[in-house]
Amino acid sequence: MGASKQVFIAIIGVGGVGKCFLSQLETLAARRQFPTLSLCYISNSKKAAYDSCYSAIPVAGALEKLSTASQVPPALPQLAAYLSAAPSDVILIDNTSSQDVADAYPVFLSHGISIVTPNKKGFSGPYKLWQDICAAASTSGAKIYHESSVGAGLPVISTLKDLVETGDRVTKIEGVFSGTMSFLFNSFAPISGAGGKWSAEVAKAQKLGYTEPDPRDDLNGLDVARKLTILARLAGLPVESPASFPVQSLIPKELEACASGSEFLQRLPEFDEQMDETKKAAEDLGRVVRFVGSIDMSSEQVKVGLEQYDASHPIAGLKGSDNIISIYTERYGSNPLIIQGAGAGGEVTAMGVTGDLIKVLAQIV
Amino acid sequence: MGASKQVFIAIIGVGGVGKCFLSQLETLAARRQFPTLSLCYISNSKKAAYDSCYSAIPVAGALEKLSTASQVPPALPQLAAYLSAAPSDVILIDNTSSQDVADAYPVFLSHGISIVTPNKKGFSGPYKLWQDICAAASTSGAKIYHESSVGAGLPVISTLKDLVETGDRVTKIEGVFSGTMSFLFNSFAPISGAGGKWSAEVAKAQKLGYTEPDPRDDLNGLDVARKLTILARLAGLPVESPASFPVQSLIPKELEACASGSEFLQRLPEFDEQMDETKKAAEDLGRVVRFVGSIDMSSEQVKVGLEQYDASHPIAGLKGSDNIISIYTERYGSNPLIIQGAGAGGEVTAMGVTGDLIKVLAQIV
Repeated sequence: MGASKQVFIAIIGVGGVGKCFLSQLETLAARRQFPTLSLCYISNSKKAAYDSCYSAIPVAGALEKLSTASQVPPALPQLAAYLSAAPSDVILIDNTSSQDVADAYPVFLSHGISIVTPNKKGFSGPYKLWQDICAAASTSGAKIYHESSVGAGLPVISTLKDLVETGDRVTKIEGVFSGTMSFLFNSFAPISGAGGKWSAEVAKAQKLGYTEPDPRDDLNGLDVARKLTILARLAGLPVESPASFPVQSLIPKELEACASGSEFLQRLPEFDEQMDETKKAAEDLGRVVRFVGSIDMSSEQVKVGLEQYDASHPIAGLKGSDNIISIYTERYGSNPLIIQGAGAGGEVTAMGVTGDLIKVLAQIV
Repeated sequence: MGASKQVFIAIIGVGGVGKCFLSQLETLAARRQFPTLSLCYISNSKKAAYDSCYSAIPVAGALEKLSTASQVPPALPQLAAYLSAAPSDVILIDNTSSQDVADAYPVFLSHGISIVTPNKKGFSGPYKLWQDICAAASTSGAKIYHESSVGAGLPVISTLKDLVETGDRVTKIEGVFSGTMSFLFNSFAPISGAGGKWSAEVAKAQKLGYTEPDPRDDLNGLDVARKLTILARLAGLPVESPASFPVQSLIPKELEACASGSEFLQRLPEFDEQMDETKKAAEDLGRVVRFVGSIDMSSEQVKVGLEQYDASHPIAGLKGSDNIISIYTERYGSNPLIIQGAGAGGEVTAMGVTGDLIKVLAQIV
């Protein structure tokens, strides 16, 4: 990659994670003397700030600069061409959750542009895209890191990769992969046995900002299915897509057609009895119900949905909106390697991105 | 570091971890086409296999080659000179627990030789050695990785470094850092309330190979104190040495002078009553007793010893000989980032070494 003393940073996306990342980048750029990090491009969905000389945009003033920018973002192939013509190495930070941007990863990578992103779409979409990404990176030597695509800043992907690369064999992965689902079930069915009505817990979580604006975007299980797809592929299972294994949706069939999230929330109490029965069935066995994802490597089965756990199980005792990921391998035997902690939130998600950026920098300069 | 296609590997130490590492290295060298890993030196405390042409020693036959070698290991400065004259980058794997080898890290590093090791001594000895190691690596650009010095293959050090480097602030670290202590207390004072006599559990653990041949080498708490010293320094506390903070030894004063481990084990039952009282004092409060280490960053206090935990606390519920490490930071707030799993054993310790080797390789070629 050459021993250049300057590395160009290009950022797409300045939402919640993007803003936290900018603040972390500012600290990083100030502390690290080498290499010089030079922000040459920043965009949201409507505008882009950049020029033909790759002039450095001060990180502290980047958002303001973007807000007053007059250019629309170039098409992605044009952006790849622009970045690949930069006079030094370029790292693209994709802080969006856009499928379009993810679809363009192979183009960026084949131009030698490294990518760091919390965006799940590139790694959990069609298997063909995953293969294209791997092939493009391998051919050009460009790096692609996406720690925050699973468990935010928790070291899940790096650990799984280390296990596989050092020759261990994953036998099973199991856990709570959604901060929203964690919060909902820790409140709805706590070990202590109390807990509120399901619809009330969902409404509360939405009010507190723990769910997407339309809670159905969490309750459909797709977010968890995407994360499982990524982990299964890294562990060696060629999962075709998040739609190719059973995913239990917690949206009652009758409410799928609701016109809005608020209509959905209004009608959800009709189904509280159903959820209470699910909870009680677990309680009758001394258990609690949790929304988990699991990958069984020997049977090649991936699934997402409700499961029951004894109160003493680490998954049952989770707190707040924490994630927990248990990785079972041949080396670790019957006691898995467990990683637990906040798996959502701007700062910890951005931390995974910044950590990846540091790792890429260590390799390209 | 230059874009060389060959990297030389030198190994000191072929004990339990060293043998597992050799087997992982064999797999790694076979799977990775680039760079070519060339084992040019291997030694135990008595012999060394190497030649003046840096001829490649087949990894699969390395132990046999060493057993028939006729050379004694060169003095460490001579070894550093030999390796630094190699025609390509060199990575030294220190699979010993030797203080002498650790003392020589600054010499190796200043010669541009990268180091990967599970040996705690270089990072937990005098603060001056730690500073010399950091300075030598920073000046020469050589890398030094030691994931397995805490928690074996568990991603503890890499995660702590990521947190600090991305600008998070550690507030507290707490955990069970010794597989031996974990096993002893999970058996002696399980949550269930049963558990055997202390001396019987120690004797059993020794018989099963969970302790050092002389169990006092575990019970003195020094191993945990060394790990705490490493983590505290990485988190930003300039701890002078493992002797500069309170460490509770579980060796009764009267037995410190025992001539052997077996004499110690024979007399240990005299102190069972004392340990039973400790256990009962915790039980009376609905708690269990555990041997933990903790670092409080705000009060700058590090300590190692017995603590009491509620049955619902993750530290209380640990199984087998697992380690658990809770890292509290400003970003993660009141719920810590937790890493849990086997923290000892040849295969998982070697995995940390192999994982570090892969990270160094990614940076020097």
